[in-house]
Amino acid sequence: MTYSVLINGQSEQSVPVTDRGLAYGHGLFETIALNQSTPVAWQAHLARLRTDAERLAISLSADIDQLLEQDLTELLRLQSVILDRSVLKITITRGCGGRGYSVDDSVSINRIVQLNPFPDYPDKPSEKGISLRLCATRLAIAPQLAGIKHLNRLEQVLARAEWQSSDFREGVVLDAEGFLAEGTMSNLFWCKNGTLYTPELDRCGVNGIVRQRIIAIAEEQGIKLSIGRYKPDCLVSADEVIVCNSVIGVWPVVSAVMHENNRLSWSIGSMTRKLQSMLAAEGIY
Amino acid sequence: MTYSVLINGQSEQSVPVTDRGLAYGHGLFETIALNQSTPVAWQAHLARLRTDAERLAISLSADIDQLLEQDLTELLRLQSVILDRSVLKITITRGCGGRGYSVDDSVSINRIVQLNPFPDYPDKPSEKGISLRLCATRLAIAPQLAGIKHLNRLEQVLARAEWQSSDFREGVVLDAEGFLAEGTMSNLFWCKNGTLYTPELDRCGVNGIVRQRIIAIAEEQGIKLSIGRYKPDCLVSADEVIVCNSVIGVWPVVSAVMHENNRLSWSIGSMTRKLQSMLAAEGIY
Repeated sequence: MTYSVLINGQSEQSVPVTDRGLAYGHGLFETIALNQSTPVAWQAHLARLRTDAERLAISLSADIDQLLEQDLTELLRLQSVILDRSVLKITITRGCGGRGYSVDDSVSINRIVQLNPFPDYPDKPSEKGISLRLCATRLAIAPQLAGIKHLNRLEQVLARAEWQSSDFREGVVLDAEGFLAEGTMSNLFWCKNGTLYTPELDRCGVNGIVRQRIIAIAEEQGIKLSIGRYKPDCLVSADEVIVCNSVIGVWPVVSAVMHENNRLSWSIGSMTRKLQSMLAAEGIY
Repeated sequence: MTYSVLINGQSEQSVPVTDRGLAYGHGLFETIALNQSTPVAWQAHLARLRTDAERLAISLSADIDQLLEQDLTELLRLQSVILDRSVLKITITRGCGGRGYSVDDSVSINRIVQLNPFPDYPDKPSEKGISLRLCATRLAIAPQLAGIKHLNRLEQVLARAEWQSSDFREGVVLDAEGFLAEGTMSNLFWCKNGTLYTPELDRCGVNGIVRQRIIAIAEEQGIKLSIGRYKPDCLVSADEVIVCNSVIGVWPVVSAVMHENNRLSWSIGSMTRKLQSMLAAEGIY
């Protein structure tokens, strides 16, 4: 089995040390699930990539969608077998610049596209649920970068480094003012009396594709949805809690350690199962 | 002339796409001036690297100083001629990990050491002074990362992308609360009635080696120094303003555009010239 990498359409395994993604994190990425070689929510991922690249002063060529489609086709050809599931990672960086923060217009972006094995979750978290822990690391309030899946991810790295125990599948992270933001690698929703809640991500966090899809489903299905600033105490009275992203789909949260000796627990309810089944119908599971 | 790169002691030009410096900005760097092949403030740079790596959960081996000295020796050997001045860049990343924010203890760091040409400043900014502009991009308040020269530098990239005109050699950046923080690539000092002032960097910014050295010189010389939170208006009544870093040394600031139609100007005074001459004696110029 070969998991290949294409850089600007060429089979490569490495990027020049002068890449501005490495030097400054000047770039962004998408993580996309493939089901039997078919990318899930492809158009939504490409749309986010285009919008967010602009916010990072990265100009994508008009044919970027086509180039990425060609990359995917070529990677699948190189892989030679059709896998049940795999993960496609697209990274766009501002390219290879000189030393210094300014970059010349003549510098081309770098397009890195990789196939990776689908992560194995033998404990079936989608079915059985997971435990969360509250991280001490806080997300800085940075409206200019909020929502973007950019390459400046030290906050997530430090939050994830807070625990080793496999008892916890995910950590919940607050913003600098103590409001719920997201998981280290996922978005957070909860449900109370039939209303869905999720944190506003206008000041920090990643506006995930599955998050966007759940928000759209709520609208389509007439589920009441509230997006706002919520303190962690809101989880105490929640009926159901979930985390989601493009690879894990929706994981029910069955317990959380919020402070020492303060363990919360929830059952897996009908809202969770309904969202899982509607997303599964779109290939998100 | 060859400007070489060593990666983990080997001559290489590229890093694997799986490098966590590229994926997440999980790493840090030092920019060091070389005068006739002699690194300036070498021990101070290594000390900062060791301290800040620990804050990023990056464990450096006990012989890191020795390895970096060997790298420098080898790069100078490959360069073959002794240049009047050049720039050494050391980048340490958390190494090549898998997908996901957590990283296994078994993953080794990557050590990237490059020689670069010394930037050419034909307009002699050290002598004649520069113009500043106030950037709209704000630095997020992030105490956990404050002071570290880490690889998450999107704020600096976006601030520097605000202007193209060569009329401005540097931009001054405020923190999210509107306090003066630093330049996009430099630290900021000003002087009023014989007292030196510089922003506190406990919530954002890079604690530069030349900044540290100026603070130490002030103490040694009995110059009154005030480190704190200051609004941009403090610059209006300043007698002298300077920016500094390890490559530029000290640049006097002779004018600044803070808002539309609001141009400030300063003369180059005795404090600036005194600091320049004391730093020059240590090879910083």
